[in-house]
Amino acid sequence: MVNRLKEDLIESGQYGRDPQRRVERYDQLDPERGVIRPTGTEANKKVRDYAVKRMKEVGLKIKVDEVGNIFARKEGSRTGRGVVMCGSHLDSVINGGQFDGAFGVFGAIEAVRRMADEGFDNERPIEVVVFTSEEGSAFGLTLLGSSALIGKLSIDDALNRKNPAGQTLAEALEQIGYKGDFERGLDDVENFVEMHIEQGPVLYDERIPIGIVENIVGIAWVFATIKGEGNHAGTTPMKVRKDALVAAADIVSFVKRRANEIDDALGAGTVGTVGKLTVFPNGTNIVPARVELGIDIRDVVPKNMEDLKNETAEAIRNLENKYGVEVEINIPTTHLPAPLAPEVVNVIEQSAGQVRIQAKRMNSGAGHDAQNMAERVKTGMIFVPSVKGISHAPMEWTEWDDIENGVMVLTQTIKNLSRL
Amino acid sequence: MVNRLKEDLIESGQYGRDPQRRVERYDQLDPERGVIRPTGTEANKKVRDYAVKRMKEVGLKIKVDEVGNIFARKEGSRTGRGVVMCGSHLDSVINGGQFDGAFGVFGAIEAVRRMADEGFDNERPIEVVVFTSEEGSAFGLTLLGSSALIGKLSIDDALNRKNPAGQTLAEALEQIGYKGDFERGLDDVENFVEMHIEQGPVLYDERIPIGIVENIVGIAWVFATIKGEGNHAGTTPMKVRKDALVAAADIVSFVKRRANEIDDALGAGTVGTVGKLTVFPNGTNIVPARVELGIDIRDVVPKNMEDLKNETAEAIRNLENKYGVEVEINIPTTHLPAPLAPEVVNVIEQSAGQVRIQAKRMNSGAGHDAQNMAERVKTGMIFVPSVKGISHAPMEWTEWDDIENGVMVLTQTIKNLSRL
Repeated sequence: MVNRLKEDLIESGQYGRDPQRRVERYDQLDPERGVIRPTGTEANKKVRDYAVKRMKEVGLKIKVDEVGNIFARKEGSRTGRGVVMCGSHLDSVINGGQFDGAFGVFGAIEAVRRMADEGFDNERPIEVVVFTSEEGSAFGLTLLGSSALIGKLSIDDALNRKNPAGQTLAEALEQIGYKGDFERGLDDVENFVEMHIEQGPVLYDERIPIGIVENIVGIAWVFATIKGEGNHAGTTPMKVRKDALVAAADIVSFVKRRANEIDDALGAGTVGTVGKLTVFPNGTNIVPARVELGIDIRDVVPKNMEDLKNETAEAIRNLENKYGVEVEINIPTTHLPAPLAPEVVNVIEQSAGQVRIQAKRMNSGAGHDAQNMAERVKTGMIFVPSVKGISHAPMEWTEWDDIENGVMVLTQTIKNLSRL
Repeated sequence: MVNRLKEDLIESGQYGRDPQRRVERYDQLDPERGVIRPTGTEANKKVRDYAVKRMKEVGLKIKVDEVGNIFARKEGSRTGRGVVMCGSHLDSVINGGQFDGAFGVFGAIEAVRRMADEGFDNERPIEVVVFTSEEGSAFGLTLLGSSALIGKLSIDDALNRKNPAGQTLAEALEQIGYKGDFERGLDDVENFVEMHIEQGPVLYDERIPIGIVENIVGIAWVFATIKGEGNHAGTTPMKVRKDALVAAADIVSFVKRRANEIDDALGAGTVGTVGKLTVFPNGTNIVPARVELGIDIRDVVPKNMEDLKNETAEAIRNLENKYGVEVEINIPTTHLPAPLAPEVVNVIEQSAGQVRIQAKRMNSGAGHDAQNMAERVKTGMIFVPSVKGISHAPMEWTEWDDIENGVMVLTQTIKNLSRL
């Protein structure tokens, strides 16, 4: 049974690789060339077309909404029952892997196929969903499609966003043929289930095939610019310098140390990362004039996240007195931690037991469309292991046995939910 | 008298500005658009042509050697006396200023003009020299022309060096018409004097018009690559990370702290700078996988410089145990500190006194062709103030009064040397 799903993932995994090619095994990955299919690209069109073809083959009815989200529906045997939605996304980061998002979509299609093969009678309608622009790789906003669906992003704001080429989302969707007019509210939706690769090392390291997500971490980003004085590294005495990088190094160390401390003290899984640090002008013999920092802070406990965010901003402001630099801080909207529905967590756990696959409860350190959906409907997530915990990189991989474990648990979960 | 030199500096300062324009005052500088005239560019040809025209007008005989160094000679009144050489360079860094190098060349031409105006009888021959590629901006090696002249760089090695476009120095010089065949040894040369902007804040801050250089600092560069593990910033627990930037931040802080300590303890004018730090992949939500560092260490005392260089390399190696990263260290050839000739220092000091201009002895924190020349002939350097200490940047400036002070001291110095 896995061969059908495996084929879908290998076939769809071609789109966005340069050159386009099938990758069937880990050792065929090229560490320099991953999958590139931001929304609106030719590769994004191809992977959508491929999924729609598969959906139609199993008898699903396709509708596309105004921001390009795809809904593929199988009616239920009883009227008036809320829908069980299931899916993920097909866009990718720049140089990602073939499972991130795609596994949740093609896994849901496979679950529907298995129910059809068995002649399973789903009482509730089932909809396989493909969300637009889960990654921010083209239009700069993550979780775009699900944000529009739950109404926290207006359709107009979504459609007017531009990609780096200056094209709006509306234009990009027209171009690939996915600018629909379906208006899908959520009043008739009972559940959402998203299956996804873990994107971290926990399941892989512990050799556990299934993760059941209880919480999705909150994410706070802190951006800062530190302005010092660029000058000649040979002729500028140490005492008169305003070295922006020396100041920035303090923040790198601070974020690491405090995240460790909070994590140690509270066992909270707190993480803090200075992922981006860009030096200007970045010449060996020039005292750094300016540094731009991008800092990522995550926790499932809102207070931990807020505390670390505020302490970090305070530490950055203190650089002005300590180093004579000037700082600017920009904190975009924080995503609060999202608890998933205990009821769905329980159903997934029971389902794993029914198909005799080991599972553990855990948190998701990555953001997912499920965190948006959780604001409106009872939502759950199923994780499978990522080899060496790698994701958002060309070496992202999940073993085929784990793919099969995932889809078995997902199929059982949808079956159970569809009769609840 | 200053107007002739001022005109030369403003006229020659046009070449390499985009758009080409005359800058006569500080407030006409554009902080984004400085002078760009690496060796072999059209702008480099224009500034050389302009200087040669001025040299010929005052009766100097021009010869060009195999690496494009220009020698413009005025014979002396007595035969068999060693030459007094004087000059600097006309190439620039990317986005530098109009005085760096050019002041030393046009100042020397002006000194010859003043001697001619006075009918001064120079006993020794005088040669105005323009060194090729003092900056490493095109062919990646600083002090190229003077290194070839003193024989520590072979002519072939020099001519085979390539610029970023893949053109060799030989081709670049052919293209601009400065591939000569003069073979200029140094056996008949008695002195070299280079006048230059200070490129640091000392004279400007202390309001002293002339600096007399006693030593040129030694320069050690340390390049390092720190390899950690790139990973998802949300899904990778703090404890399993190998964050290359956290490790690199340690080195930034270490270099700053140790340079300060050595400087404080020894009053040595020690400087240490991490000028270059590049993060890969440099995404806010990705744990840094790799960091490349470029570190600059300078001191006039060889032991201080060697100590700081070795301690820095040791600190980088220790990152492997401390953070589980891998490091690679590359230390290119160190330039040792260069003491200038006490005899020439004295002549410059006396000359400043004769023209009643205040001067102080100091060290040069920047490298200059004079440090090469000092290995073979008795060499001195004259500094003038840089506004706010800025150099190698579009806002580089020197006040016209200081330009006049400099050329008065230089003229007197050459006159005195030419009869010694």
